[in-house]
Amino acid sequence: MRPDAFDWIDEERVLREKAGLVRALRPRPAVATLTDLAGNDYLGLARHPAVTGAAADAARRWGAGATGSRLVTGSTELHAALETELARFCGAEAALVFSSGYTANLAALTALGGPQALIVSDAANHASLIDGCRLSRARTEVVPHADPASVRTVLAGHRGRALMVTDSVFSVDGDAAPLAELARACREHGAALVVDDAHGFGVVGEGGRGGPADAGLAGAADVVTTVTLSKSLGSQGGAVLGPARVIDHLVNSARTFIFDTALAPAATGAALAALRLLREEPERAARVREAAAFLHRRLTAAGLQVAPPDAAVVSVRAPSPQAAVRWAADCRAAGLAVGCFRPPSVPDGVSRLRLTARGDLTGRQLDDAVEVIVRTAPAA
Amino acid sequence: MRPDAFDWIDEERVLREKAGLVRALRPRPAVATLTDLAGNDYLGLARHPAVTGAAADAARRWGAGATGSRLVTGSTELHAALETELARFCGAEAALVFSSGYTANLAALTALGGPQALIVSDAANHASLIDGCRLSRARTEVVPHADPASVRTVLAGHRGRALMVTDSVFSVDGDAAPLAELARACREHGAALVVDDAHGFGVVGEGGRGGPADAGLAGAADVVTTVTLSKSLGSQGGAVLGPARVIDHLVNSARTFIFDTALAPAATGAALAALRLLREEPERAARVREAAAFLHRRLTAAGLQVAPPDAAVVSVRAPSPQAAVRWAADCRAAGLAVGCFRPPSVPDGVSRLRLTARGDLTGRQLDDAVEVIVRTAPAA
Repeated sequence: MRPDAFDWIDEERVLREKAGLVRALRPRPAVATLTDLAGNDYLGLARHPAVTGAAADAARRWGAGATGSRLVTGSTELHAALETELARFCGAEAALVFSSGYTANLAALTALGGPQALIVSDAANHASLIDGCRLSRARTEVVPHADPASVRTVLAGHRGRALMVTDSVFSVDGDAAPLAELARACREHGAALVVDDAHGFGVVGEGGRGGPADAGLAGAADVVTTVTLSKSLGSQGGAVLGPARVIDHLVNSARTFIFDTALAPAATGAALAALRLLREEPERAARVREAAAFLHRRLTAAGLQVAPPDAAVVSVRAPSPQAAVRWAADCRAAGLAVGCFRPPSVPDGVSRLRLTARGDLTGRQLDDAVEVIVRTAPAA
Repeated sequence: MRPDAFDWIDEERVLREKAGLVRALRPRPAVATLTDLAGNDYLGLARHPAVTGAAADAARRWGAGATGSRLVTGSTELHAALETELARFCGAEAALVFSSGYTANLAALTALGGPQALIVSDAANHASLIDGCRLSRARTEVVPHADPASVRTVLAGHRGRALMVTDSVFSVDGDAAPLAELARACREHGAALVVDDAHGFGVVGEGGRGGPADAGLAGAADVVTTVTLSKSLGSQGGAVLGPARVIDHLVNSARTFIFDTALAPAATGAALAALRLLREEPERAARVREAAAFLHRRLTAAGLQVAPPDAAVVSVRAPSPQAAVRWAADCRAAGLAVGCFRPPSVPDGVSRLRLTARGDLTGRQLDDAVEVIVRTAPAA
């Protein structure tokens, strides 16, 4: 008898179970029962009444959906307002909003790459950047993590269009890229620099203006930045920021812009309201960094292996995928939600607890979180 | 002097201008000033008060954003409810919601494809399916449009894992795929069938249950369907529907699921409210098909070249990209928004006006629309 078309899935399931790598969804209720050190709502704005109110107002005023691609019926004056204010906040000439950070990254890399280009990619880049490199059909050279010298070497051996792509803050270990030095390396060879500032925007730099601004690259003619609206801004979506001609080029050629329904009005309005809060209350960004530094200091003092955080992400090593899962479950049982990163989400294969500092956590909540994490830690 | 990293963009801009292919955003106001025959809000639900109210309620109750990936903090009971009701409505075992139809398609093809697989792809498939094939690293064989015999030939020459992927209703000409025959061809060779029902769901089949249900494929063990929440459901997002083991496999391996922030609560709640409206008022789907048939009949009678519509999309040929742009602009000046498809959005290079029938258009609005389109038509 012919096997069913999906029988191979059962075999992969068995392998995944043996490796301790099965994932399952755990839908949460509307009222939180856990202290959240797992989400990416760094500024605590996802439930801010000004932000949820803006989402509700936008849905009622502009509709539940955008009704089409941005180039057909999907562009509203609300999208345009968000793009103008995002660009101004980050010091960029122009901005373009997407339905996710993922599709924003695919857009930037496919529209700026192409078969005749070279993309130099940091080894620890986010999955969406790796997929963007693949989709771009450019020749991609992966260089060691945070290594401008290797970037220089690869660029020196190439003639023609080239760009380097890096996260500004890496999502697994929370460390920052050497952006100023990478920009110098790119400029020496006429290459562009594309920075995914998903974890820097709203947290790093003066008032949360992000990694490129902090590195003196705001408004640079050869730098393009992508951000998410779903982390510091507590909403959904992504954006590409850069020179006006680059943004115009994306409007005309980026497939995830042309062939995707526009971001819903509620998410657009929420992101705009959150951006205005951040602009008016710049201390929100500093509070996130202080909370991250506190977690690192206290957990290290307790003998845990913690990477020094450059933004909100605080990463704690676990001895195995199984130990990481058990550790996270023990934290959860004690009322604390923490992230648990296992292969294939970790490029080096090392499983981790992933904590995210939020600017709205109280001192008491941070103290309690440290106590739980240390008490439930697996034996070294 | 070294050229700037983005100088090549200016050269591409000049070529695009010469070819009449420059695109620009046209943000619309909150209160519509045009009759919309361009958007994909087929059932007219994007502004239905039950749908916008559900979006507003969800934002206030669940937050403006989902705060993380579905596997970390992004899954809410609201997502789970939508998945349960979507699956039941379409007769599938299980469903999984994504932030867009684009990322749902990338998920299905990358998680079910892979380097050892063959993907057979219809020549007129949507850009998101083409990108999914590319990202999957499978060997992709493009077959002529709507041609089960070619599918059989390609599958017969392959041993090992295989799938065929097709739109159910093609977005450019609005014609339906021969789904029942394609499913037979796949079954004969142990291959899976992946159907993008973006333009069928909510319009085609009994009560809008979509293309696969209409072809007798609901609940089939070897068929996977993707839908959008941004067209008939008037919201944002996408979903994959299919056997429970396939959905479990996506949770564990689809990169656009694991590495993307979950769909925002407002969009999730709006889609759920719209789905319930469609279930309670199944005549909404029939009204869309009647409106499309009316447009086709009247425009053909007036001597225009109109493809027979199998769902909501009604496609009218234009002699050139420039003529299509002028025609759409003339319609707009007369109060009618119509889509204008030019290369690279049209696989055959033929520019078109693209009309979308909406179930909530009145007879008078349809009459007026026909009058405007015929009056402004370019000389043949």
